[in-house]
Formats: sequence, structure tokens, C-alpha cells
Amino acid sequence: MRVSKLFTKTRKDIPSDETSKNAQLLIRAGFIEKEMAGVYAYLPLGKKVLDKISTIVKEEMNSIEGQEIQLTALQPKDIWEVTGRWSDDVVDIWFKTKLNGGAEIGLGMSHEEPLTALLKNYISSYQDLPVFIYQVQTKFRNELRAKSGLMRGREFLMKDMYSFTRTEEEHQKLFLEAKNAYERVFKRIGLGDITFFTTADGGIFSSDFSYEFQTIAETGEDIIYLDRDKNIAINEEILSDEVLSKLGLIRENLEVKKASEVGNIFNLGTKYSKPFDLNYVTEDNQLKPVIMGCYGLGISRVMGVIAEELSDDKGLIWPEEIAPARFYLINLGNDQEIVERTNEVYKRLIDEGIEVLYDDRDVRAGEKFADADLSGIPYRVVVSKNTVVQNKVELKSRVSNETELITLDKLIESFGVKL
Amino acid sequence: MRVSKLFTKTRKDIPSDETSKNAQLLIRAGFIEKEMAGVYAYLPLGKKVLDKISTIVKEEMNSIEGQEIQLTALQPKDIWEVTGRWSDDVVDIWFKTKLNGGAEIGLGMSHEEPLTALLKNYISSYQDLPVFIYQVQTKFRNELRAKSGLMRGREFLMKDMYSFTRTEEEHQKLFLEAKNAYERVFKRIGLGDITFFTTADGGIFSSDFSYEFQTIAETGEDIIYLDRDKNIAINEEILSDEVLSKLGLIRENLEVKKASEVGNIFNLGTKYSKPFDLNYVTEDNQLKPVIMGCYGLGISRVMGVIAEELSDDKGLIWPEEIAPARFYLINLGNDQEIVERTNEVYKRLIDEGIEVLYDDRDVRAGEKFADADLSGIPYRVVVSKNTVVQNKVELKSRVSNETELITLDKLIESFGVKL
Repeated sequence: MRVSKLFTKTRKDIPSDETSKNAQLLIRAGFIEKEMAGVYAYLPLGKKVLDKISTIVKEEMNSIEGQEIQLTALQPKDIWEVTGRWSDDVVDIWFKTKLNGGAEIGLGMSHEEPLTALLKNYISSYQDLPVFIYQVQTKFRNELRAKSGLMRGREFLMKDMYSFTRTEEEHQKLFLEAKNAYERVFKRIGLGDITFFTTADGGIFSSDFSYEFQTIAETGEDIIYLDRDKNIAINEEILSDEVLSKLGLIRENLEVKKASEVGNIFNLGTKYSKPFDLNYVTEDNQLKPVIMGCYGLGISRVMGVIAEELSDDKGLIWPEEIAPARFYLINLGNDQEIVERTNEVYKRLIDEGIEVLYDDRDVRAGEKFADADLSGIPYRVVVSKNTVVQNKVELKSRVSNETELITLDKLIESFGVKL
Repeated sequence: MRVSKLFTKTRKDIPSDETSKNAQLLIRAGFIEKEMAGVYAYLPLGKKVLDKISTIVKEEMNSIEGQEIQLTALQPKDIWEVTGRWSDDVVDIWFKTKLNGGAEIGLGMSHEEPLTALLKNYISSYQDLPVFIYQVQTKFRNELRAKSGLMRGREFLMKDMYSFTRTEEEHQKLFLEAKNAYERVFKRIGLGDITFFTTADGGIFSSDFSYEFQTIAETGEDIIYLDRDKNIAINEEILSDEVLSKLGLIRENLEVKKASEVGNIFNLGTKYSKPFDLNYVTEDNQLKPVIMGCYGLGISRVMGVIAEELSDDKGLIWPEEIAPARFYLINLGNDQEIVERTNEVYKRLIDEGIEVLYDDRDVRAGEKFADADLSGIPYRVVVSKNTVVQNKVELKSRVSNETELITLDKLIESFGVKL
């Protein structure tokens, strides 16, 4: 894509009411636009990042035989009354509206109820289980305070997966598969080193523990106690000598860190299957309730965490697999020779299937360099008088700031294969 | 995918209040589930079809340099008051709700206002134009009557593209590019032969004509007058001698057909740019309002039209590019030799990158055949005692019903290359 064709531009002005660092950076770079607090539109480069995170999440859910569906945002009142979660006293983040004709409906803030109800049409025998079902969908939550940019949205993109199993042992098996898939996701999107599997409170979903993936973050809303050797953590909310001993952790070995929740896993047990009578007939002809689990991952939230935590004072820094492009290509000067050579480089990279953002604008070099840094694209490639003479290009890493002169063939050889 | 692993099943029972043929078929085949009138969830096979249609639409919008974004479902009142479209007297299909804290908001039923407002941040000069911007997004419309299954949803998936141009001539140029892209979409999704570019009323968007793509459909809501030689049509709502002469059509040459609108194009002129002051500075330093166009395509609606119009008494019939799989593979009998051979065929097809739904269930042959037909997958492949002896498989086309015995190599050779 040529920057001259992209309708967005980097911006100096940001909305005065935008106080979160991730949204400020993403708005300045032209990746998102604020519609209202906690509600953001995605512009072309931001949409690419969001799509890439979604694709990675879907690939990893598919790898454990997750079956993708799409439930509805509009939710009928009756199925939520089955569990008592329609009441605003129980769930205080509903958006509610009315059908023309009168019936009250809600906007899906989660989907346990509709999916459990739906599965009654399909699950009746032990032969129908186990199964993983997931969706990537916009959720709506009427948060009173939505001041954290993409990290806490009123409208946000979430992957929610649900497991349906016959026994507690089978649940544990699927739980482990999902945990491993989550670890692969966080590694691929560039958060692997700072994201920890964390034991936490079961919350409204469960009387037992729940599990979170927590990313170390200066602006994180949680406090975790981290055992780096064991690569696990415990959420402060359940910290006690009893829990520590249960998890085999020693208080002195733990680091205290602020962290941001990027994923969670709840053992739902029969909390939803019982009220909906979602049962199955066992091999020896007994009727038993299905055991459920729930696995959330906030896709837009993760994008916010990455924007917030991996950035520096020059702007965004995207991990390679989710960057909107691999290279930010710049022609330094408008001499015919330089422009022609840059066009050649652009064409060659595109032909190799490598994504490039080509800053072909007629603006100062300093502006191009600043925009390259702000956009957070992993590698900057510059074509200048000097590089043309040497028949090379200048390559600079956004992370390390290291620069080298390299031939185009070498550049493609080093990077093309990874894609 | 193995049918034994798929959580959905074909169903005999359908909701008693479901009267539309497309939804009845899709529910019976396990592609969708009804949540309420005009609101449907997509199950794994249905989600695949929806995604494939989306992908084709996106590819064709990208081919004319459309830039993909994602606007928000939650809409603030103030930007819609600029054009007067917040009022329920003007737009009677709003879903409205309230933020915790009190402010009234709406659910996006279209996105002209937010996009025009957003572009004020980015467009100021003739150098910023022209541009095509599009999104594929869930729209919400509070329809009083939603009895046509996927063909008229209260919650539905739509591609809406907008063009921003400097002059009427430039608008005409982009309009033609979009028209051609639409024709490629309808050809690829299998509606090319029965879909016609139709002149219609400008409606609330324009005082001039608008343009529709109308697919001939028994249950269509529109009447079109079709000139097959010229490959264009006119919507009955604007039929008059004056309009016919303007379009160079002769009444006697026209066929009357019921049809269903699958796409539309409006010349918005300055209807939105003027109230929002979306202006640009010309090369000779004049301030002019931007000329806009709007290009809609109902993705879930198109899926409904295809389910309704291309089906037969045995079930669905999916065009090849949007089918949930290319082959429906069946093992006829459970002899070890047959099962092993079918497993081989399955593995080989998957290794070739061909999508297969493998009906490995231990059920009657008749049930497998009926489900293969109902699912609408283009080709059925059967492995039986007879085919094993001949070292072939039996191939049957869902459309033509023609059957042939063919070697696996030949099968892959004929089909693999198309993918």
C-alpha cells in the first residue's frame, strides 16, 4: 500500500477526553478513531492488526478442533431469565432495547445462555461429546467507566470458546488443550515473554478458582504475584497462605507486578447445563448434565495492551506476526533514479508476497522517519542516493534501532521465508 | 471435517414460526439457528458459507482499491442529528438504548453519518481524493416484519462501501468501477446469470435514480422489467414511458419478473458532505463539498437468496466458490477395507488442500445420501465395495445428478487445480 493512497494520516491532535496511552498512540498513528468512550472505529492499518490477531486466535482454536460459529448480538429476554442473569441487579452492564412491537431484548455481553440453549438441539448422547465451540464476535458491555482505550471497551471484539464434556476428567483434558493453545496465541502475537498463566478467583461463574492469562503492564488493573521459575502467577485477590500452599508456591519467591488480563478460563461445571437441562445419555444409559468450560480472549483488548506496553516514546511497536506490514519503505528524495529504484523495491517485495507500506509522499525526510517510527512497523527500508550507488537498501529495526546496508536479494532471503 | 465430529446435525423439526423457505432449509441442514424473527446464529457450515461470500466481496472491493475499515455499532445521537436522521419519524427502524450515565445512543443501521464525520479528520485537499472506503459489518434494523429468513434481518451482515470524489465526472468513474466489481462478485458467488443491473428510485438518499442489483427470485419483494438483450432492468416503481425512453428501453421487449435486491448504489451527491462541512480545497484554491456515493451489498441476505433460489426439493445447492466444502465423502458400509480406503481418500484430498466433509457416521446409506443432498455440497464422492474393486470412487454432481466412476488421481486433477 502506498501512503499517498491511504486515506488516513498520522495526527497531532487527539480528542481532549482521551486519556489512555494506547488509544492516544493508535489515534495519532491513524489506526483507530474514537466514537465515544470505550467505542472505537478501526481504520485500515488498525483493522489489519485486529484481523491478524483474530486470524492467529482462530488458527489456534481450530488446531484443537474448535468449531467456529457466530451467535447473535440481539438477545431475547427469556433465555437469560432461565439463569437469572437478565436482571440488572445481577448483571449491571446490559444494554437493553425494544423490538418494534414491544418485546424487550438485550445486546449480548456474553453468550453462555444462548449457546447452552442452542446445544439442546444437537447434544443428547455421550457420542455427541466432547466438543469445543467458539466465536469471534463483537460484545457489548455498558461499562460506567470506560477510560482505558481498547483495554476496556463498551463495544469490543472477543473470542469466546466453550467446551462441552462428559466428565470432570474430560473437562480437565480439554482445559489443558485450551491452555496450551492460549500459550501458542500469546507467543505468536508477541506477548509470550510477559504473559503468565495465573490462578484467580472463580468470580460469579464458579465457586472454585478460575484461571487468567495476565500480561505484565504498567497500567494494568490487576496485581499478580509471579513465580518466574515456575512460569506461573497468582492473582492478589486470592493470595493467602492456604492458596499458596495448594499451588506449591513460596511467598518469598514471588515478584509483585501490575498486570492486565488478556485471557480467562472458567470451569463452569453444570452451572448452565442444569438450568437449561442440557443432558446426555451415558454409555450405560444414565442421564447426566453436560460439564462446561468457558475460554475468553479479548482480541481488541490484546491490541490495546500491545499498543500500550510494547510502545516507546517514538510510537507503536508491533510484533512481526501482527504488524500491519512487514516493511515501511521510504524514498529519500525525489530524483528520478531514487524514485525508480524505490518503485522497483516496492514491486519486488509485493511480488514476493511481503506486505509493505510505501511512503511515497513528497514530504520532508524527517516526517517520513517520524511516521515510520510512530506506525510501529517492524522494519524501515530506505532508498537514498547513497544506497543506490552501493546497489543496496538501508534496513533499520524498529525494536533494536540497528541499521545495516543490505542488498534487496539478501533482504528478501532473510525475511521472505518467514512469511 | 468429519461429520461425526461436527456438533451440528441435520434436523427434521424446524421452529413452528419459521415460514421462510431459505431459513427452513438452512435450519434443517444445520447451517443456522433462529434466535428470534430476523435474528439468526450461524453454525459451523453456515459460518463457512458466510465467510466465503465475505471474502469474495472483500477481494473485489480491494481490487478497486477499496480500503477496509470497521465502524461502530454503538452510535452517538449528535452526529445523526446533523442530518435529521436521528428522529424516529424520519428513520423508523432504529434500535435505541442508553449508556450507563444517561446518554441516548443508537445501533448503527447504516453508516453515512459517522464515516462523513470521521473523514473530516483526514480530507481537506484535492490531493486526498478520490477514495473508496468499505466495511463488512453487522447492521441492526428494527424491522416490524421480519419473516423472510436471511433475506430481511433485524441483525444482518452487510458490506457498505462509500466513495469520496472531487467532481461528478470522477464520481461516475468510481461508480463504474464499483458496478464492475459488483458484477464480478455476483458471478463468483453463482448469481451472475440471474442478477441484473436495475435502475430504480433514488429513495430517501437522492432525488435522482438509484441503481440496484436484482436477482430473479420467486419470493422476491420487487418487480423488475428486464431487457435480456441489453442485460439491464428497470424497477417497476419507476416504470413510465418517460423513464423507458431515457434508458433507451422499449416496453414490448421487457420481461416482467419477481426479484430480490442483492445490492444497491446511490449517488449521494453532497447530501452528507454539506451538513458535515466535508470540503476540500481544489488545485486553484477553491473550497468545494466532497461528492459521495454509497454501495451496499447484503452478505447474509445474498446467502438467503442463494439458499432460497438455487435449492431444490432435496435441499440446498451451493455454487462452488461459496460451498462449505467441495466434496461430501461417504463410506458405504463399515468393512475394514472400505473404511481404510475412504480414510485414504479423505487424507489425500485434505493434503491437496481440498475441503471435504467426510460422512464417517455409522448410519444407513440412505441417511448419508439424503444429508449429502440437503447440505448442498457440490460433489458427492462414494467409496463402496464396487468402487474399491475397480480402484475408483463414485462422483456425483449435486446440480446435474450425473454420476461417474473416476480414479482418485483423475478426481484431484480435475478439481484440485480450480481451487
